[in-house]
Amino acid sequence: MNFDLIVIGSGPGGYVAAIRASQLGMNVAIIERESLGGICLNWGCIPTKALLKSAQVFDYLNHAEDFGIKVGKASADFDAVIKRSRGVADGMSKGVQFLMKKNKITVIMGTAKLVAGPKVAVTDAAGAVTEYAAKHIIVATGGRAKQLPNLPIDGKKIIEYRKAMSMENMPKRMVVVGAGAIGVEFGYFYHTMGSEVSIVEFMEQGLVPREDADISKELGKIFNKKGIKVYGNWAVENVDTSGKEIKVNMKNRKDGATETIVCDVVLSAAGVTPNTENIGLEDLGIVTDRGYIKVDEYYRTNVPGVYAIGDVLATQALAHVASAEGITCVEAIAGHHPETIDYNNIPGCTYCVPEIASVGYTEQAAKEAGYEVLIGKFPFTASGKAKAAGHPEGFVKVIFDKKYGEWLGAHFIGYNVTEMIAEVVVARKLETTGHEIIKSIHPHPTMSEAIMEAAAAAYGEVIHL
Amino acid sequence: MNFDLIVIGSGPGGYVAAIRASQLGMNVAIIERESLGGICLNWGCIPTKALLKSAQVFDYLNHAEDFGIKVGKASADFDAVIKRSRGVADGMSKGVQFLMKKNKITVIMGTAKLVAGPKVAVTDAAGAVTEYAAKHIIVATGGRAKQLPNLPIDGKKIIEYRKAMSMENMPKRMVVVGAGAIGVEFGYFYHTMGSEVSIVEFMEQGLVPREDADISKELGKIFNKKGIKVYGNWAVENVDTSGKEIKVNMKNRKDGATETIVCDVVLSAAGVTPNTENIGLEDLGIVTDRGYIKVDEYYRTNVPGVYAIGDVLATQALAHVASAEGITCVEAIAGHHPETIDYNNIPGCTYCVPEIASVGYTEQAAKEAGYEVLIGKFPFTASGKAKAAGHPEGFVKVIFDKKYGEWLGAHFIGYNVTEMIAEVVVARKLETTGHEIIKSIHPHPTMSEAIMEAAAAAYGEVIHL
Repeated sequence: MNFDLIVIGSGPGGYVAAIRASQLGMNVAIIERESLGGICLNWGCIPTKALLKSAQVFDYLNHAEDFGIKVGKASADFDAVIKRSRGVADGMSKGVQFLMKKNKITVIMGTAKLVAGPKVAVTDAAGAVTEYAAKHIIVATGGRAKQLPNLPIDGKKIIEYRKAMSMENMPKRMVVVGAGAIGVEFGYFYHTMGSEVSIVEFMEQGLVPREDADISKELGKIFNKKGIKVYGNWAVENVDTSGKEIKVNMKNRKDGATETIVCDVVLSAAGVTPNTENIGLEDLGIVTDRGYIKVDEYYRTNVPGVYAIGDVLATQALAHVASAEGITCVEAIAGHHPETIDYNNIPGCTYCVPEIASVGYTEQAAKEAGYEVLIGKFPFTASGKAKAAGHPEGFVKVIFDKKYGEWLGAHFIGYNVTEMIAEVVVARKLETTGHEIIKSIHPHPTMSEAIMEAAAAAYGEVIHL
Repeated sequence: MNFDLIVIGSGPGGYVAAIRASQLGMNVAIIERESLGGICLNWGCIPTKALLKSAQVFDYLNHAEDFGIKVGKASADFDAVIKRSRGVADGMSKGVQFLMKKNKITVIMGTAKLVAGPKVAVTDAAGAVTEYAAKHIIVATGGRAKQLPNLPIDGKKIIEYRKAMSMENMPKRMVVVGAGAIGVEFGYFYHTMGSEVSIVEFMEQGLVPREDADISKELGKIFNKKGIKVYGNWAVENVDTSGKEIKVNMKNRKDGATETIVCDVVLSAAGVTPNTENIGLEDLGIVTDRGYIKVDEYYRTNVPGVYAIGDVLATQALAHVASAEGITCVEAIAGHHPETIDYNNIPGCTYCVPEIASVGYTEQAAKEAGYEVLIGKFPFTASGKAKAAGHPEGFVKVIFDKKYGEWLGAHFIGYNVTEMIAEVVVARKLETTGHEIIKSIHPHPTMSEAIMEAAAAAYGEVIHL
């Protein structure tokens, strides 16, 4: 069989690349070893959002009286919550199957390896190996949970995200190690369901250590109020799983103090590591750097005809980055001259309650880059819509370059802000200035008005503060 | 007392104009006859959003099992729901009071009338009249519910929005006359609370008659499924309020068929009419047209020193329009040269469930204006986030000019879409093309991705369809 393009891996990088290639007239095959849609659809973005929605509904129930609604006893049916999440994931995976069929993409189930040619050798479930040739091969094998040396994942006492979204029973006490998006999302979820949750983060900033410091502080305040324990700047020294209860032994990185948390399960959420082992990179001489595949701006590796996109690259390990890389890569293969991706304009979202969304420079990073900045902040306590919705927590923070008005960064924390950040992405792409945002008439009453107001605050023109 | 500026009316036009004027160094007074914040804060945008949030929470409760949550018997405490809404409104009005004080704006309570000078004569609660002079006077007296001749509002059997948000008891059966934003919002609210609701609309399109026809159709389908009865293209001939039950006698405008709906209360939601009577316009010779004050692009009337903004103008009767007009007017008074408002880039929102948000041309209007259009549509059934959130209803529809790629219009219906429309406003203001939207990386998983996908659909590049 000869293809124009073979894509290895059907995550949001791979399957999107395959569809775009098919649109551009290529004869495409995609290889998947597990479930169409990859981690994102099956064990990441989508099923976690289903879990978080259940938590949010449960949260509303527990505060229904605030809205004038009387409720009898409410309880979360943990099994049903997990089942719903799995159902949503399965539905989405079937959706990808449909898209593959509709776009006449050949789906090959099995484990792929690059071999000389370059070709792709696929081992199927029965162990049979078939070789496939193609003019172009895209490696989109994705990533997996990073293992910390002192936190060996055993799938029972020390688990990673996949297990965390398919547990049989709700743990009474959970320790989450790592306070990035995955860590705080699960921390929020299990806390809301009724678990006692502690979150431990190695970095000094504590929660969401890569976000703007103000965002981290605000989330810390809110989590604290909810009753989620947060340990920022603590290192997990070791975990004692020998007894019935688990003991997480920690050391404070500043003063050396030690503390032990007793719990029933530890969730390791220490980030993502690329799936670049055992896929034939070395045999073909494809250059990597600390495990990540090296590519140019059109995702070409050093070996002609072999490309790489998504979590196997050192770029942000995000589904929308992988998709955009896939599209750009394929359009370049097709002889278009697509614009290259601006990695400084990639939004990032965290879906706990309150949500976090951001794009561009943090205040600190902007200053370190030498910008003289104008900062504007607008709290949702001053937003009529947020108050009416019963969600006055959080704020919008925007950062402009003082000299030219360039929109350097935006940092949101609050109800549903993940749906508001795209405005900033588009505005920055279109090279807006602060004043153009102030003069863009946002609808009233919406929380999105806070963006306009924060921009106005940066220029001393804020109305509602 | 001498002021640089007197603003008559403290709604979102007036109070925002007053604040901006104060920022620009003017000595400002504002006159209000009732409550600071005007209709918007006290009897419009804000309290209705509070009611709708209660309805939404109640809705979740009634479908909690879909999310894996078990609930005992839930009931809406109508009194508590109304009380919460009033509380939110009062809080916002106090917020305006705070803003007036902070900006050193003199608040004068009373009923204002323009008199020769021009000056402003204010009659206070005790009937005493005081005259105030100012270099500039802005008329921002707003609007009120339009009365239909065959639907005389009596405040008991035939009511308008103000009564509808402060009723003592939940009506068993309600007929809403008028299917614009106010009508469908109250229709959704009362239906969700448990009333039997029928909505009657004179215009052929039926629900939301000014929105794109596809939006109207989709809302009709969804309301129909919910059990809200919709009568599009029916005229209310008369209402018989003589008996215990109210009889609404209607005639079909197409085939002349007649029908009578029996109910307990009729809500007249036939739009807004300007408050331009008895405020001295005639005495000063200020030119009006069918009740609306005539102004130029900086909101100057024909009488030097007198300006008008908000619902007294023939522009869209929306809070954000009034605010923008107030700011533009005041900046021009201050000698700035603010950009004038593009009335074709004003977003409009309707907050029933599903929500509606739109900006720019409808498909029909674009075609009538002579554009050759590219249409892209993306349904939320294909959105992972919408599915995870349990809200797969609705879609995003976008309209581009085929020749230059100009973004002519956007029409959203679905969960929470009112927070997504600002992106389109900003993008249109920055003169985006369709391809720039396709290449703006929207975060995954969000419903905002549907905007990017709909744009891609318009250009034959959609991925998830």
